[in-house]
Amino acid sequence: MSTGTDISFFFNPKTIAVVGASPTPGKSSHIILESLKRIGFRGTTYLVNPKYPSIDGCKCYSSMAEIKDNIDVAILALPASKVLEVLKPVENVKGAIIISAGFKEVGDSGRRLEEALKEIVVRKGIRIIGPNCLGIYDTVSRMDTFFIPVERVKRLKRGRISILTQSGSFAEMIVDEMASEGIGVARIVSYGNRVDVGETECLNFLVDDDATKVVVLYMESVDDGRRFVEVASRCTKKKPVVALKVGKREAGVHAARSHTGAISGRYEIYKAAFKKAGIIEVDGYEGLKDACKVLNTYDLVAGKKVLIITDGGGVAVTMADACEDLGLEVTGLTEETRKRLSAKLPGYTATGNPIDLTSSVTDEDYVIALEEGLRDEYDVVIVIVLWGPSEITERLVDKLKEVREIYNKPILICSPGGKFTRRMAKHFEEKKGLPVFFTPESAARAAAVLAGGKM
Amino acid sequence: MSTGTDISFFFNPKTIAVVGASPTPGKSSHIILESLKRIGFRGTTYLVNPKYPSIDGCKCYSSMAEIKDNIDVAILALPASKVLEVLKPVENVKGAIIISAGFKEVGDSGRRLEEALKEIVVRKGIRIIGPNCLGIYDTVSRMDTFFIPVERVKRLKRGRISILTQSGSFAEMIVDEMASEGIGVARIVSYGNRVDVGETECLNFLVDDDATKVVVLYMESVDDGRRFVEVASRCTKKKPVVALKVGKREAGVHAARSHTGAISGRYEIYKAAFKKAGIIEVDGYEGLKDACKVLNTYDLVAGKKVLIITDGGGVAVTMADACEDLGLEVTGLTEETRKRLSAKLPGYTATGNPIDLTSSVTDEDYVIALEEGLRDEYDVVIVIVLWGPSEITERLVDKLKEVREIYNKPILICSPGGKFTRRMAKHFEEKKGLPVFFTPESAARAAAVLAGGKM
Repeated sequence: MSTGTDISFFFNPKTIAVVGASPTPGKSSHIILESLKRIGFRGTTYLVNPKYPSIDGCKCYSSMAEIKDNIDVAILALPASKVLEVLKPVENVKGAIIISAGFKEVGDSGRRLEEALKEIVVRKGIRIIGPNCLGIYDTVSRMDTFFIPVERVKRLKRGRISILTQSGSFAEMIVDEMASEGIGVARIVSYGNRVDVGETECLNFLVDDDATKVVVLYMESVDDGRRFVEVASRCTKKKPVVALKVGKREAGVHAARSHTGAISGRYEIYKAAFKKAGIIEVDGYEGLKDACKVLNTYDLVAGKKVLIITDGGGVAVTMADACEDLGLEVTGLTEETRKRLSAKLPGYTATGNPIDLTSSVTDEDYVIALEEGLRDEYDVVIVIVLWGPSEITERLVDKLKEVREIYNKPILICSPGGKFTRRMAKHFEEKKGLPVFFTPESAARAAAVLAGGKM
Repeated sequence: MSTGTDISFFFNPKTIAVVGASPTPGKSSHIILESLKRIGFRGTTYLVNPKYPSIDGCKCYSSMAEIKDNIDVAILALPASKVLEVLKPVENVKGAIIISAGFKEVGDSGRRLEEALKEIVVRKGIRIIGPNCLGIYDTVSRMDTFFIPVERVKRLKRGRISILTQSGSFAEMIVDEMASEGIGVARIVSYGNRVDVGETECLNFLVDDDATKVVVLYMESVDDGRRFVEVASRCTKKKPVVALKVGKREAGVHAARSHTGAISGRYEIYKAAFKKAGIIEVDGYEGLKDACKVLNTYDLVAGKKVLIITDGGGVAVTMADACEDLGLEVTGLTEETRKRLSAKLPGYTATGNPIDLTSSVTDEDYVIALEEGLRDEYDVVIVIVLWGPSEITERLVDKLKEVREIYNKPILICSPGGKFTRRMAKHFEEKKGLPVFFTPESAARAAAVLAGGKM
């Protein structure tokens, strides 16, 4: 479908126009105006709506033709039926983000509208993101077309992950959760029905995008399978690419079709393509969240050997199971390391892998276990901290951070629990940059992502 | 191992003794004293420690022999080496809870101590819970031997679930999480090394315990496989039994051995035994948490047909995948229902299963979708609520509760997101008793539990 012209202007627009701009609070287009102000878009914003001479003190143009400037990105927040009216006559627009729903996903009438949109792409060379999407949230170019009130869905700070998604609701969920956990993003594109621009072209842009260190994909289907594998293969040589394919099963496939009109195809083909391209596949939403959290902090590791340190035996058994389920190796300590641990730690310590410090643990025991354990060859360490034992204190947070800095191995904290635990988790994450996972499975999934996915 | 005498006195003690009682805040035995006061134990509590004449104004006995009363439950919070000294001479004790670690799990010396404990069980007829355990947390008899400060791990209100667990750290985690989510329990037993009383006898007690409507098991190994299956089979005829078997894989098996000294055996045998007994098996900690949450509110259902209603397409596709992965059936709506839905809802609604109300959703749309959808035969409904769409309001919480009351089908809310979402979740849960799950996978796991587990 693509006309092949460069789409990088979507990620660095100088001029944008909000078509269908409204002064009514709560309306999509008004939310977009507010979002653009909040995020601090630094280019020129034109408002377009024949009904109003001005909105919030800014001039409002009656049509695109009235604007004597070239528009990099026109954001169309209009009923589906009006979209063609706007786009057909324009001469000064490079690209459009069409957030409106009511196209292919609603059946025949919408499908005809969408065919007409495709014609516009081909005949006029206007590049289109959408329709039926949230558009772009970009902390680099400072653009935000996500038409959801910030009171409902918090926005993200700048980070190193970029996300490409067909689904707007997926973007909404992950944005809200990541924001509430203090994780940042570089750029997010929700492209919905993908009448033109899709994941392959966006991914192609991200390959050389310095602001993007990690790419996360949510896919119902693929726009151009062969090209996607080619682009993704280039990308994974430079930065990790994580993908969630949904619509794997019969019901999911049906749901995907009525959602973005996507034909999701046989899952096995995707699986093979991901593998070929070096993409790390995750199983579901939970895995994707874990991947975002761990890759927000750590780079991939070379192997799959995991060291588990714990103050609770039961949770460590569950963790060992979860790690092995995902193909990680919970290999034993060397005899020398076990001896050193036995010499330095109390007699009740289990000096295997997991190293079980038991509920008689102290802060310093964790440090000893880490320092000695890391003399053996491990790629990732999972440190389970149950805050019940009264001898461990808030100082543990600093101590683990210090060890992390010396040894330069990814340390994942696993800390299931309630209020006290969550408060400590904030210390770990916000003050020390150590990611905390709240279930054994979640920490294991994150470790598996660092090791390159299921093996 | 069991001497076969009744153990129900552990769940209804009239007299207890805290042996090793200490006036020092933070010490295990002192935490237990405080916990017993907080939970409001209504029987008589004796303190025993030769070092003190009194503790916190209560008389302290120099030995068990000094107490001229029969003791139902002696709680031993002593170093492992002192445990035998205390138990050998006693004549007035029915049962003991030994929280001390330092037995079989630490190797040969501990194993000898444990053998000596077993002799006491046989020779003196004293029933023992532990060692190396948290003991009992019981909202019915109002007993709490969990020696973890309440500031670190919140305690649970009364509820209908009882939990049996080898692992104390597992008990700690699940208690803290359930408490923070407002879920209650009837009784929890953490039996650790299980020198005497284990899951089979506890389960046998719970079969006819009116306070217990649901049993949840965390198992590293089983005490008496044949008897366990027999007892569990009787129990599942009266109430749901959910089990998590850990130590499934090699690393987990090793970890379990150094943890409670358990030989966890081949996982496949457990799997088959669970199935035979009608036990609902869950895969990990996440599944067990989901089971507790959903069974806190709902009873099991007869079938496995799930209706999904959503305001976000992507999350519904993920949900449909997750449900089918677990053997649930996301069966389509009947033609008549689709017609009624199309007549009553806007044109952009996808009237399949999932019913996708899209981001243009209103509160009333959810009600219509539920009322019409439930005319078809479904066993469970998962209602996905993404709070982004500005037309849905807090009133949705009341409306869904009303529908729930009329139709008497379990409604599971799935609501991933951040701060606003979590606040709404509290409304759903605390005010309306509708359980909320924060990932698609979590809601699917809960639905699968209601439908009787993996099929």
